[in-house]
Amino acid sequence: MNAPGAEAPGHSAYLSSRGNSIRQHQGILQEGFIQYAMDKHHQTDNPAGIINLGTSENKLCYDLLHERLTKPDMLHVEPSLLQYSCWTGHAFLRDEVAKFLSHYCCSPKPLSAENVVVMNGCGSLFSCIAAAICDPEDAILIPTPFYGVITEDVHFYSNVKLFHVPLDCEADGKDSRPFHLTVGKLEAGLEKAKQQGWNIRALILMNPHNPLAELYTPKEMIAFLEFAKRNQLHTIVDEVYMLTVFDESVTFHSVLSMESLPDPQRTHVMWGMSKDFAMAGIRIGTLYTVNTDLVEALAQLGLFHGLPGTLQHQVAQLLRDREWINNTFLPENRRRLKSAHSLLTQELRSIGIPFLDRPAALYVWADLRKYLNESSFEQELSLWRRFLRHKVLVSCGQAFSCSTPGWFRIVFADQHSHLQLGQSNELFVFVSLKEERDESDSAAIVNLTSSPQSKSSEQLKEGDSPVPDTGSLGAEEFVLLDCQASKPAESLDSLIGTLRHQIRSSDWLEKNTPVLSHGEDPEILDVFKSLLQRAKK
Amino acid sequence: MNAPGAEAPGHSAYLSSRGNSIRQHQGILQEGFIQYAMDKHHQTDNPAGIINLGTSENKLCYDLLHERLTKPDMLHVEPSLLQYSCWTGHAFLRDEVAKFLSHYCCSPKPLSAENVVVMNGCGSLFSCIAAAICDPEDAILIPTPFYGVITEDVHFYSNVKLFHVPLDCEADGKDSRPFHLTVGKLEAGLEKAKQQGWNIRALILMNPHNPLAELYTPKEMIAFLEFAKRNQLHTIVDEVYMLTVFDESVTFHSVLSMESLPDPQRTHVMWGMSKDFAMAGIRIGTLYTVNTDLVEALAQLGLFHGLPGTLQHQVAQLLRDREWINNTFLPENRRRLKSAHSLLTQELRSIGIPFLDRPAALYVWADLRKYLNESSFEQELSLWRRFLRHKVLVSCGQAFSCSTPGWFRIVFADQHSHLQLGQSNELFVFVSLKEERDESDSAAIVNLTSSPQSKSSEQLKEGDSPVPDTGSLGAEEFVLLDCQASKPAESLDSLIGTLRHQIRSSDWLEKNTPVLSHGEDPEILDVFKSLLQRAKK
Repeated sequence: MNAPGAEAPGHSAYLSSRGNSIRQHQGILQEGFIQYAMDKHHQTDNPAGIINLGTSENKLCYDLLHERLTKPDMLHVEPSLLQYSCWTGHAFLRDEVAKFLSHYCCSPKPLSAENVVVMNGCGSLFSCIAAAICDPEDAILIPTPFYGVITEDVHFYSNVKLFHVPLDCEADGKDSRPFHLTVGKLEAGLEKAKQQGWNIRALILMNPHNPLAELYTPKEMIAFLEFAKRNQLHTIVDEVYMLTVFDESVTFHSVLSMESLPDPQRTHVMWGMSKDFAMAGIRIGTLYTVNTDLVEALAQLGLFHGLPGTLQHQVAQLLRDREWINNTFLPENRRRLKSAHSLLTQELRSIGIPFLDRPAALYVWADLRKYLNESSFEQELSLWRRFLRHKVLVSCGQAFSCSTPGWFRIVFADQHSHLQLGQSNELFVFVSLKEERDESDSAAIVNLTSSPQSKSSEQLKEGDSPVPDTGSLGAEEFVLLDCQASKPAESLDSLIGTLRHQIRSSDWLEKNTPVLSHGEDPEILDVFKSLLQRAKK
Repeated sequence: MNAPGAEAPGHSAYLSSRGNSIRQHQGILQEGFIQYAMDKHHQTDNPAGIINLGTSENKLCYDLLHERLTKPDMLHVEPSLLQYSCWTGHAFLRDEVAKFLSHYCCSPKPLSAENVVVMNGCGSLFSCIAAAICDPEDAILIPTPFYGVITEDVHFYSNVKLFHVPLDCEADGKDSRPFHLTVGKLEAGLEKAKQQGWNIRALILMNPHNPLAELYTPKEMIAFLEFAKRNQLHTIVDEVYMLTVFDESVTFHSVLSMESLPDPQRTHVMWGMSKDFAMAGIRIGTLYTVNTDLVEALAQLGLFHGLPGTLQHQVAQLLRDREWINNTFLPENRRRLKSAHSLLTQELRSIGIPFLDRPAALYVWADLRKYLNESSFEQELSLWRRFLRHKVLVSCGQAFSCSTPGWFRIVFADQHSHLQLGQSNELFVFVSLKEERDESDSAAIVNLTSSPQSKSSEQLKEGDSPVPDTGSLGAEEFVLLDCQASKPAESLDSLIGTLRHQIRSSDWLEKNTPVLSHGEDPEILDVFKSLLQRAKK
C-alpha cells in the first residue's frame, strides 16, 4: 500500500513522517518474532514450524498456571471492576503489589500502595517514564548488551534515545568477569555522552540482567546508584526476573531490600508478571517509586495503559495466594528451570560452546564466535538467519546492541522435548554448524527469510558498536548479505540433515514449495527441490 | 514534592518540561472524576458521597453483565493466551470483532479481520492514530462541543492539537437545528486553520455524538466524508455509541454500512465496548480501517496498548454470543435506557430546562444558561462547582469546548434511585437552583472543592471560545472566582435543603468537619457549622 506520490520505497503517503518511521521500524527481535508468529511449531499441527528460543518466555509452567487461573475465585465481577478507575491501578491491586514486593524484595519497611503504579506491561512503563523524566531528544544511559526492545519502548512515543555504554566480553583483570559493569565504565560513558552533546537524564539497570542473566550484588548496585546520584540521574532498575533465580544457594537482592537508597526520589523499581509468573500475555508491569511527582505524571499517561478491572482482581488474587506461590509455583518453577538450564548447558558444553553460566533468568548468553568466518555483525546476522532457516529462532547479540559480534541469547525455558538432542532442531543445528566448520561446502542457498519491509535506522545508532548500521538494511541488502556470507560456510549436510528431520513426519515440502516458488529465481528453486528430494530419501 | 530548585509553583525538579506539563495538566472532566473517586456515593457505605452524573458510563445493566461474565466459558486458559501475541489483538478476537461489526453495522460485504485493530480503549487508538497520521504540532479538525478527553488523547504522547470548529447552539434557518454541523462550517474551520498556519491532517466525527447525542444521517456523513476527501484529510469516525440508541423507530447508520466510502483509505472507524456494553473498566477499543499502512503502524505502537490474552478470549465469547446480545442484553439495555432518559427529561421539562431530546447515548445535553448571572465560562464553572458542592458531578460545556457558556451534559444511565426527585441530589439541586433565581441570598460559601493542583493551559486553547483560558486557572484563582460568582446567587435554603437530605441517614457532619477545618478560614467554618446545625433540625 504505497499509493499517491510515495516518496521513498515503502514510504506511505497516508502516514506522517513519524508514522512512517514507526511503521517501518523493525528490530531483529521483532522480525524474528513475526516470522515465528506466522509459522509456529506445534507438535502435531505444525511439526515443521519454527521453534522459538528467541523470545524470553517461560513455557515450563503452563499446567500449574492453568490449574490456578481456572479456580472459581478468578471469575469475579463487581460494578467497580466494570467502571472507570484510577489509571495507576485499582487500590486493591496496588495494595496487593505493595505487600507482595515488601515480602519478596525483603523491604526493611512495608512498601506503600501509594507508591505503586500498575500498567499493561513494563514496555508501557518505560514509555511513560521516558516521557515524564525526559524531553524529546534527551537520552538515557544503558550498558550493552541489553534487552533491545527498550530502544523502541523509550523512542516510539517519547522520542528518547538510549546512549550505550559497551561492556567488553573479555574479563580484563583479576576481579573482572566477562561483560563486567563497573562505575568506571558508567563514568566514561556519561563523559562521552556529554561530549557529544547529549542530555542524559537517567540510567537503566537490569538485575537479574537481560541478556547476561547476571546477578549484581548489593554492593555493586549501591555503587551504580551512587554514581547516578552524583550525576543527578534517575535510575530505572528493572527487576522483572527477580524470582527467576533457580539455584537455592544464590540469593537475589532487590534494591528495595536496602536499608536506604542513595537517591530514593530518583530510584524507580520495575517488576512484572511476564517472566516471574510466566505470563507475558497477561500484560502486568509494576513500578515502585517514592517520587510522587512521577506517580502523578504516570497517573495521567496511564490513560493509555489501563488494565481490565476483572483482570486486576485476578492478579490480586494470585499475588495474595502465598500458599500457592510458595508451595507450588515457585519451587516447581525453579526445579523445572534448573533442569531445562542444565539440559541446554550440558549440550553447549558437549559441543564446546562457551557461555555465561548463571543461575537466573530464562536464557543463556552463549559465545558462537567460532562459527563466524570473520568478526562482523554481518556474519552474526547471517548465522542468525541460518538458524531461522533451520526453523530455530534465537536472538543475536546485535539485537541487544552487544559490542562484539557472535554472542547469542538462547532461551531454555521451553518444553524438554524441544531442547533434547535429536528431537528438536536447535541442538541439531549446533552440531551441524560444528560439522560445517570441519567440512565446509558451497551450495546455493535459498533465502527463505528475506524481510518484506525495509528497516529503520534506530538500531545500533549510538555509535558504540564497531559496525555499520546492520539494523537498518533494506530487504535486498539482507538477501545479498546473506548469500555472500553463507555460501562458503553453509553445509549441504547440515541443511539436508535438518530437512530430513523435519519432513520425517510432515508434508513440509508440499507446504513450503508454493512459498518458495513465489518470486524466487527458478534456478535456485530447482537446487532447493533437488536438496529436498535427497533429504526425503 | 517540589524539591531541589523548583522553578515555578507546582513545578517538579525531577521531571522534564514535558513531564511537568503532563503531570500538571488537568481538564475539568478529570478534576470532577478525581473528586468523585475520593468520595463516591454508596447507598449504605457513603450515602453522602458524590453522585456521578458526569462520567459517561452505563450503570443500568450490571445484573445482566454479571450473569453473563460469570458463566463458565469465561474461565478459559490456554498457552497462547499467556504468551506474547500480535499487538493488534489475537486473530480469534479480530475475527470476532469483524463478524460483529459486519452484522451490527450492516456492512454490504463481510468485514475482514485483517483490517481490525483491538487495543485497550479508544483513548489508546486516538493516541496511536494521531502519532501515525500526524507529526508533532500538526492538528486535527473537530467540531465543538466534543468529548473533551480527546484533547489529551492526541496531545499527551503525540503532541497533536485539535483545531475547533464551533457549532452554534441556536438553529439559524429552516433546515437548521441547534449545534448543527454542516460542510460549510467544516470548510470555514479548515480555511481558518490554514490561515493560522496549522497543518490539518484529519477530521474527527462522532456518531452518535458526544455530548450532543446527535445522530447524523448517511447523507450528512457522506457530505462530511466528501469534504475530507476533497481536502485529503483522514476521517476518524467514532461510533462508540452505535448500539446505544433506545428508540426502536430510529435507526443508526454506521459509515461501515455504506456501499462505498468516498475515501476508504482515509476513513477509520472506531468502536468499543465501554459504552455499548456498559463496561468502561474492561478497556476494549476497536478500529476498522482498510489502510494497511495505518494497521502496520498501529501494530508497532500496540506494544503499549496490549490486552490480556485471557480477556481477549472473554471478549470474543461475549461478541459471539448473539443469543444473549440480541435477546437479553440489547433489548433490556434499550428498555432501561429509555426509561432512565424519560425520567430525567420529564424532570427537566417540569422545571423548564431546555435540552436536546435525542434517543441515543447515555446523557442529555441541557441548557442551563438561565442559571448563569451572565454569559461567561467563569459563571458556568461556578455553577459546575455548585453542583459538586451539592455532591452531584455533572459536566459543563467548557469541558467539551462548547462555544456558548451554560450548557451541561447530564448522564442519565444510572440507577433509578439516583435519578428520582427527592431520593437523590441532582434534581433537588435543579429545583434549588430554580428557587435561588427567585429568592437569591448571599451567605458565605465554603469552598469545598478547591483544586490541589494548578492547571495546565491545554484546555480551550484553539481560540474558538470567546473566553479566557478558564481551564488553566490556578487553585487560588478558582477559589476567588467561585466566591465572587456564587455569593449573590447562592441560596441558604438550597444548601440547607441538600445537606438536610444528606445527613438524614449518615454521619456526614462528623466525617466532613475535619476536612473543612483543615486550612479554612475559622470564621467561614463557623458559618458552615451553624448551617449544619440548622440543617440537622
